[in-house]
Amino acid sequence: LSPHQSHLERYAELAIRIGLNLQPGQVLYIGSASTPVPVELAPFARLLVSKAYDAGARRVFVQFQDEQISRMTMERAAEEALAEFPLHLARMYEEAADNGAAFLVVYAPNPDLMQGVDPKRLTTAARASQKALVRFSGKLSNMDFNWALISAPTDGWAAKVYPGLPSGERTEALWRDILYTVRADNGDPVAAWQEHLDLLRERARYLNERRFRRLHYRAPGTDLSLELADAHLWLGGENDTPGGITFVPNLPTEEVFSVPRRDGVNGTVRATMPLNYNGRLIEDIELRFEGGRIVDYKASSGYETLKGLIETDDGSHYLGEVALVPVDSPIARLNRLFYNTLFDENAACHLAIGRAYPPCLEGGTAMSKEELLRHGLNDSITHVDFMIGSADLEIDGETANGERVPVFRAGKWAF
Amino acid sequence: LSPHQSHLERYAELAIRIGLNLQPGQVLYIGSASTPVPVELAPFARLLVSKAYDAGARRVFVQFQDEQISRMTMERAAEEALAEFPLHLARMYEEAADNGAAFLVVYAPNPDLMQGVDPKRLTTAARASQKALVRFSGKLSNMDFNWALISAPTDGWAAKVYPGLPSGERTEALWRDILYTVRADNGDPVAAWQEHLDLLRERARYLNERRFRRLHYRAPGTDLSLELADAHLWLGGENDTPGGITFVPNLPTEEVFSVPRRDGVNGTVRATMPLNYNGRLIEDIELRFEGGRIVDYKASSGYETLKGLIETDDGSHYLGEVALVPVDSPIARLNRLFYNTLFDENAACHLAIGRAYPPCLEGGTAMSKEELLRHGLNDSITHVDFMIGSADLEIDGETANGERVPVFRAGKWAF
Repeated sequence: LSPHQSHLERYAELAIRIGLNLQPGQVLYIGSASTPVPVELAPFARLLVSKAYDAGARRVFVQFQDEQISRMTMERAAEEALAEFPLHLARMYEEAADNGAAFLVVYAPNPDLMQGVDPKRLTTAARASQKALVRFSGKLSNMDFNWALISAPTDGWAAKVYPGLPSGERTEALWRDILYTVRADNGDPVAAWQEHLDLLRERARYLNERRFRRLHYRAPGTDLSLELADAHLWLGGENDTPGGITFVPNLPTEEVFSVPRRDGVNGTVRATMPLNYNGRLIEDIELRFEGGRIVDYKASSGYETLKGLIETDDGSHYLGEVALVPVDSPIARLNRLFYNTLFDENAACHLAIGRAYPPCLEGGTAMSKEELLRHGLNDSITHVDFMIGSADLEIDGETANGERVPVFRAGKWAF
Repeated sequence: LSPHQSHLERYAELAIRIGLNLQPGQVLYIGSASTPVPVELAPFARLLVSKAYDAGARRVFVQFQDEQISRMTMERAAEEALAEFPLHLARMYEEAADNGAAFLVVYAPNPDLMQGVDPKRLTTAARASQKALVRFSGKLSNMDFNWALISAPTDGWAAKVYPGLPSGERTEALWRDILYTVRADNGDPVAAWQEHLDLLRERARYLNERRFRRLHYRAPGTDLSLELADAHLWLGGENDTPGGITFVPNLPTEEVFSVPRRDGVNGTVRATMPLNYNGRLIEDIELRFEGGRIVDYKASSGYETLKGLIETDDGSHYLGEVALVPVDSPIARLNRLFYNTLFDENAACHLAIGRAYPPCLEGGTAMSKEELLRHGLNDSITHVDFMIGSADLEIDGETANGERVPVFRAGKWAF
């Protein structure tokens, strides 16, 4: 694998024990229907499988893909074929979720994979996948089962993050970053995680007590007012399934997040990082909102891809998540662009276009789509984060009586 | 990949054009539900995908697996979980077959993969897979769609075939063998295949004209009388789908084959090669038949695996195929044990336990299971070849009037 065998083992164990909190007798799927594990990560997948059986997994299924083959498909398959997603595969994942399985995704896309491929074809394929998996994604957003998103370096991704290093050293450098961000490189990762989760819980508790009605964002290119749903909840780090399994859906995670009101976002916002979406990079995103809806958008490159994302469905014209991450978070301190949302979103405040997380509303996980909408929560077949944090960002919280309280100053927590 | 890039490309092209005869607009699945492509063969899979799109594939799906993970599953999953096969996966392949897809399997099992794993657990998993895929396998046996079985070396398999070579040279040596056996290493592989297929067609035509009632096998440890089904057909090389696609289901292929009568096999037979089945090796197989049924069996090693195979179902106590291959076939002349049925079966006369191929009976592909049985054809959820050819083998054909005609002498065609 790489020199850090013992760190890798710790990381795999963290993914299974802290991330998933895999229960004895649970079936585990590694790789999802839309995000299989890249074949070059098979050695790391073996470690995960081994740790899962150590934890008492009933059976582990691993779905692999080859990125170059995925690219050939996007380039060369018949256009109509891209509009079809294998429904049996979607049903397999749904049924597994219904039957109590856990799901682990190793998210490691190559940011340049689809360079030169017609964005319309990519959008066609992405929509087909999102539509086929809408029920599965809904259960995932609802935290109906324990799942986790982790990562591991591929050569293609490492080349993008470390273009200046000799090719033989890039993957190891990226491994080092990943192991640092998931706290697998120090003496007692489990204790480090407990401490970290306590801190996130504390931040969320404070924000929940303040019950802000609105957040006001100010930064170069950004002047945004974002109304929070009335019964909103701030979450951070851990989630619970209805059955009572406490899990940490993202490793790493530095964010405290909640739900905007679908119709309560106004003003402009400028992204502070490029966005790797659907195998393409979108740079210098700027969005303008009126009554919650994106009424205008720009990008210096990847405009067609951004357009494809925003025009996915009606809900992709609205926000579904608001997340706070200070610029002095461990990942942010690396001061490195990872071109991977799992890392970049944990280095900066962000917003998400698309589906809201029902657990971010009191009683939300038990509500129908219609009830959630009545409470102001957005729905969509997609959910895509984009980063807006920087050292220039200031955020005020507006309380019910109109008082404005500093939440972020110079990109960091103000309390 | 290896030094022979141009030969590999020819091989991939042969697999798509001669093996599958992939039609423009056809969907192609590479790797089956029970035999996905080993992840280490991803570079070769990319070549196949590329050649498939060159031939006009509508879309190509590739199913991968990691052998070490498969082994962990067989060792460590819950026993009850091994008895379950993901039915949605089976339905996905069935539906694709119903909708006119083609299927390419890259068959490259590591013969020692499951060494030390409880054969009962392997048998449980194999039966679950065979049961789930019985309809798909039936369509495949019936040649309802175009499919092909090819191969490529993995490190584990190459180590078994070439234990005496330095580890860095084994895979290349096995590639060389494979490219030789599939005629991809000479000037005009397509012309070489046309000539070879003509020869197999000629052998089959001769045997079909003779209309032998029985074959008599004599060799050390073998004294077997095998009755052929009344309306039997000898086939070799090519097959046709009902829709008229002519394809070559095995690359390499050297055999001319037909169907025994299920109840017409009597005597004893000794295998001349070890059999790699289900990740284990079975050595020195001896079988005794009465009225077609295996009434006694032995093996010097792998007895439990052989028992698991023969006790799969009722049909696995009977033969489903009889195949003739001379000891001077190109593969046999390599004088090497490949521990891979695709190669070993094309180096030696063999028989198959289990399901018969309906195309080996006049009108068979249009018959129901009951009609096929009435015509003497065996049915089972399994079909496994075992090799009985050697330079000592003599085979006589017995005509309708009782005349005995030499078919094989000293392991070679006698006409």
